[in-house]
Amino acid sequence: MALTRARIKELRNLGQKKHRVENGRFLIEGVRMMQEAVESDFVIVEAFHTQQFAESVAGRTLLTKLAGKAVHVQKTTERDLASFAETVTAQGIFAVLRQKRFSVDHLLKAKDSPSVLVAFDAVSDPGNLGSMVRTCDWFGVQGILLGRNSVELYNPKVVRSSMGGIFHLPIVEDVDLLSTISNAKQLGYKVYVTNVDGETHYDRVRFWQKAMIIFGNEAWGVSDQLKQLADVRVAIRRYGAAESLNVGVACGIVLSSLHRLFDE
Amino acid sequence: MALTRARIKELRNLGQKKHRVENGRFLIEGVRMMQEAVESDFVIVEAFHTQQFAESVAGRTLLTKLAGKAVHVQKTTERDLASFAETVTAQGIFAVLRQKRFSVDHLLKAKDSPSVLVAFDAVSDPGNLGSMVRTCDWFGVQGILLGRNSVELYNPKVVRSSMGGIFHLPIVEDVDLLSTISNAKQLGYKVYVTNVDGETHYDRVRFWQKAMIIFGNEAWGVSDQLKQLADVRVAIRRYGAAESLNVGVACGIVLSSLHRLFDE
Repeated sequence: MALTRARIKELRNLGQKKHRVENGRFLIEGVRMMQEAVESDFVIVEAFHTQQFAESVAGRTLLTKLAGKAVHVQKTTERDLASFAETVTAQGIFAVLRQKRFSVDHLLKAKDSPSVLVAFDAVSDPGNLGSMVRTCDWFGVQGILLGRNSVELYNPKVVRSSMGGIFHLPIVEDVDLLSTISNAKQLGYKVYVTNVDGETHYDRVRFWQKAMIIFGNEAWGVSDQLKQLADVRVAIRRYGAAESLNVGVACGIVLSSLHRLFDE
Repeated sequence: MALTRARIKELRNLGQKKHRVENGRFLIEGVRMMQEAVESDFVIVEAFHTQQFAESVAGRTLLTKLAGKAVHVQKTTERDLASFAETVTAQGIFAVLRQKRFSVDHLLKAKDSPSVLVAFDAVSDPGNLGSMVRTCDWFGVQGILLGRNSVELYNPKVVRSSMGGIFHLPIVEDVDLLSTISNAKQLGYKVYVTNVDGETHYDRVRFWQKAMIIFGNEAWGVSDQLKQLADVRVAIRRYGAAESLNVGVACGIVLSSLHRLFDE
């Protein structure tokens, strides 16, 4: 029942970006994440669980679903699981998933209307990125573009804090945002950047039905080049003493205003 | 120049809630935080810095200001500082501050208009609380009430992620929210809770000039008792597939809408 050392090493390696990128795989753990994965069209390469998990109600349901999808499932020990689980609450279930690739062109040319795409330029904190994926998921954004210098999508903390978001909407990694903006504009998109010194208060923006909204780095915001290419520079007015807003909070505020305008 | 073992132990103890509560003190580190502290009316009990810090431009300025406030300053080694610094970026400066106490009554009876107070019921993640303090600070909230079952305000992660917010607005800890709501209502406040199943979309709420807005726990939201006592249960409409929004993001969205209504 115990896994071989080589196998444990292989799984533990997926905790590192280098190995995730090389293998095109990533890890998830916990009941909630497994449920999301099973309902999604992500390929579950294999799953590992403890005896205790198999005996729980949630466990039985999940294992039946995994069997239905013909996923290779292996029973293992608490100890093995703890050796590669990232959180203390892995809850006895753990899986390797295949990363999914989407193309920028596919997103840009989708026929949805409204079509709102959100792009992240150099977001560096995994918790922030995950939380913003969750927010995009809540507000029904059609897709996400991650700039080349952003934190990796399949970082375990991003996956976890997206609360299932990575399973719900297409996310393209490693995007050249400058050339993508040019393409988007040619296809009829209006491009918005959110920035402290933007000239238009978010509340006065009438978002175009095809909108690409860009959020920047936690410390220095959106790059000057992107700011210049954008059609509208959106700001959130300050009423108190704080120097800045958390980028995830700014993202929520701007996205919440999207539908107010579409709805009217 | 090196500190005694007993002294280091004392300082390191302030990393624990128990000792912070007993001593009514807390720790800050880094240039940015020290600048905020120096500009605030918090009492800086003592500061520790490295030789390198004293030789830096920011260091010289800060040490002059600390001298102006007659703060006891002690030079120490990188090694000592590393032994009690919480982050790797302590930047050679570290201080012990006295905690500040505000009273609920004082906040409730303030003559400001509008007077917006924000209350947190059982928020458990320090990063979330800190980020919400920062958001309250951005939107010019008059004060914050922390319910009895919320994470401690002077937790280093709360202090850090508030980005100076804890220095800018009055925050009362350990508040009995149920009795406070009753008092607030008698003083003319309207009470709002934010909750997934609220009956009023945040965008349709006309906030009263004296408003108390309550946000709940990350997993289970605001308690039923508080929900029942509130005048308005505010929701943020969902357009996509996510099960919930991060509480910090919800807080930002609701607070951003405050001023839209006051401004008009």
